Amino acid sequence: MHGAQLDAIEREADARRHLLSPAEEMAKLGEESRPLLAYGEGIYVVDTRGRRLIDGPAGMWCTQVGYARQEIADAIAAQAMKLSYNSPWYTTNSPAAELAARIAEMTPGDLNRIFFTTGGSTAVDSALRFTEFYNNVLGRPDKKRIIVRKDGYHGSTNLTAACSGRAGNWPNFDIEQDRIVFISSPNMRLADGKSETEFLDHLVAEFQQTLEELGADTVAAFLAEPLLASGGVIIPPKGYHARIKALCEQHDIVYISDEVVTAFGRCGEWFASEKMFGVVPDIITFAKGVTSGYVPLGGLAISEKLLARVSGENAKGSYFTNGYTYTGHPVSCAAALANIAIMEKSNLLDHVRAMSEHFAAGLRSLADLPLVADVRSNGLVGCVECLADKTHVVADDFDRKIGARIDAICFDLGLIVRPIGHMCVLSPPLIITREEIDRMISILRQGILQAADELARGDISQI
Amino acid sequence: MHGAQLDAIEREADARRHLLSPAEEMAKLGEESRPLLAYGEGIYVVDTRGRRLIDGPAGMWCTQVGYARQEIADAIAAQAMKLSYNSPWYTTNSPAAELAARIAEMTPGDLNRIFFTTGGSTAVDSALRFTEFYNNVLGRPDKKRIIVRKDGYHGSTNLTAACSGRAGNWPNFDIEQDRIVFISSPNMRLADGKSETEFLDHLVAEFQQTLEELGADTVAAFLAEPLLASGGVIIPPKGYHARIKALCEQHDIVYISDEVVTAFGRCGEWFASEKMFGVVPDIITFAKGVTSGYVPLGGLAISEKLLARVSGENAKGSYFTNGYTYTGHPVSCAAALANIAIMEKSNLLDHVRAMSEHFAAGLRSLADLPLVADVRSNGLVGCVECLADKTHVVADDFDRKIGARIDAICFDLGLIVRPIGHMCVLSPPLIITREEIDRMISILRQGILQAADELARGDISQI
Repeated sequence: MHGAQLDAIEREADARRHLLSPAEEMAKLGEESRPLLAYGEGIYVVDTRGRRLIDGPAGMWCTQVGYARQEIADAIAAQAMKLSYNSPWYTTNSPAAELAARIAEMTPGDLNRIFFTTGGSTAVDSALRFTEFYNNVLGRPDKKRIIVRKDGYHGSTNLTAACSGRAGNWPNFDIEQDRIVFISSPNMRLADGKSETEFLDHLVAEFQQTLEELGADTVAAFLAEPLLASGGVIIPPKGYHARIKALCEQHDIVYISDEVVTAFGRCGEWFASEKMFGVVPDIITFAKGVTSGYVPLGGLAISEKLLARVSGENAKGSYFTNGYTYTGHPVSCAAALANIAIMEKSNLLDHVRAMSEHFAAGLRSLADLPLVADVRSNGLVGCVECLADKTHVVADDFDRKIGARIDAICFDLGLIVRPIGHMCVLSPPLIITREEIDRMISILRQGILQAADELARGDISQI
Repeated sequence: MHGAQLDAIEREADARRHLLSPAEEMAKLGEESRPLLAYGEGIYVVDTRGRRLIDGPAGMWCTQVGYARQEIADAIAAQAMKLSYNSPWYTTNSPAAELAARIAEMTPGDLNRIFFTTGGSTAVDSALRFTEFYNNVLGRPDKKRIIVRKDGYHGSTNLTAACSGRAGNWPNFDIEQDRIVFISSPNMRLADGKSETEFLDHLVAEFQQTLEELGADTVAAFLAEPLLASGGVIIPPKGYHARIKALCEQHDIVYISDEVVTAFGRCGEWFASEKMFGVVPDIITFAKGVTSGYVPLGGLAISEKLLARVSGENAKGSYFTNGYTYTGHPVSCAAALANIAIMEKSNLLDHVRAMSEHFAAGLRSLADLPLVADVRSNGLVGCVECLADKTHVVADDFDRKIGARIDAICFDLGLIVRPIGHMCVLSPPLIITREEIDRMISILRQGILQAADELARGDISQI
């Protein structure tokens, strides 16, 4: 056994003994470690057992330009040698200022002022804290409720977890908060026979009725992903965002578009809100793709119109006393600038747009397979929903077991799928080629077919 | 004007137009930018106007090994090329596993399992979410209150801001939460004539009474910094932590020690809780010094005893569904390992211990100056409290104006002080030498004397 293998065994033991991981199954704590990744290159990761895998989920929807990009490594090392840190409370740095200006160019409307955080959770948390600050300065202390959707995901701080409508994350946490109100998931599969137009009318009516019941003067914000990513790539009916936004404008409610997943090319645009979903929000949150995951970074872009109401002559002596030690971190911002430079130089947005129809067609080619109940996609993010009985609408534990089995088969065949329960979600690095998309779809096809065979043979059982 | 200057002017304009910064004074939004730092070397930072400054606050209590450390830049670049990201939900990486094992060695007691986050705020937020999870799994849904102290600081997420007792951060935010209960700041200056022992008895009695009033079976956690850092380097009476911990043990309350500032050498130890303050907590949170600020990282170490009660046979089917995209980030963890290697190779903890008496003596030498009401320190963190009238106990706006003036004078003389209101806090990079400490103290002396002169001449006025 050579050194690298011995090292891997030791590190696996360390992980087993000393790490608590997200979504840890507490009954098995200490018994096993998750696959230890050794290195990454392009769209592939290789684990310490030598398995080379297509990174189907792009890490966690974030490795846009792929692994081992020398330009980003060089940029972060150079910045670390130049200025590795500055306190954003009393100084600033060039990469943060330049990145803010670049992002302001990319955002729709007048969303021209950027507050940086450490990731998606803190971006959404700060967006909600800004909204709270905003209404307090405006003298509306009772305008504080936040409307969110079932199946939405917004983070893992206490507040952002409470805004997340993925019920699987709720057990053993106190999610319920008086000021947070859930409305329906805009999932066509739950439309109960309605047409897309009818379903849209239904959703808008529900939002309007919710405002009436709560009193619109108690509602501060509507917080929504353009497409509900970890809820299962749920794409709302066409026109949904604009209709909800119109109601928000009418009632002076801040529309926060959570683009942590959809921004930086995932849907073929820097930001998806306006160009893909027809809405100019008041605030957009981002993270993940902004650095392609190389260094932690998140943030929010805020509308000048909103800021004008609580700044200058309207400030009423206020200070925005929110912030993180790592707000505007120079190394994180340098990584983002290098990442954006790569995306521009390689015309990556054009590439995503060019690939997205091929990707969608590939997913559609799986629609008639056994188990497959639905396929949907936008840009380079898609979902294949698998159910033991295709006529079911809601998945059960058995469906999730099938999902886990498809994942295991695909892993052995060289593809990470990371199913979300019964939903096989693919959101590969944006640099993926036509041939690699074909390979990814082909492996997923094999995974689904083999799982269906095993199910037919009784090798996957309800027990 | 050469290129670098033009670039600086452009970046300042970007910052002015496009950044929202922590503690932004909203009346002046867009009018000015904070000093733009160009580069750092050792304990110095240089701004784009060529001013070379001793980094008195170590950035934000975090630049332990100083700026421009080639070893850290190399380590993060190497890791970025090897494996720039992995999803902690279904994989792991070597630097995270190794760092967890290293930190487990450094923590007191059986605090041997590490959950990584993106910084101090998310570390404390996750520690509190873990405590919530813990009590829910244990079937104690009503054991949820969190006891915290006035003058404490624990972060800027919605929940951690609500746990922070620095009243200056409260205006225009909704801080009050039913489950969070504040007790007194353990500040000897508020002892009202009591001896240290009497004051300690008083604080312990208050804690005990608070438990009785609330009902100890409704209290989940006591959350406390070993010394209240941004509250003004407030050092509790000797024996405080152990006495409070004994009451926590008696009532099955989780003792969370927030070591975001005090860990990684600031007080001369990897962790200060046990060795400097005589307490073995149940959970310790950390951030900042763990990477010397080069890359965002935070985390918490949890006691095995706590975990045993909610894992294995006691897990009751639970999953710890908390986590961040950047949990256990390989580049952040590689930076921390390189940082720790530097600290070990240079015996930096020994250096801090050797310097701390010299630092304390330097601060004490300022005690008899005009304006100086108190000096206090521990390791390489200290505070010089300045008041227009030394007999005052509580500072007012005029005292804060004097603090701001001392800061401005010291900045011109080559030292960043970053006063917290009227309190001049120094927490320099840990690599500071004896001569550099002398220089720092000497500049602060000049700043205080000049401000006192200006006050006497009427150049600083109440208006």
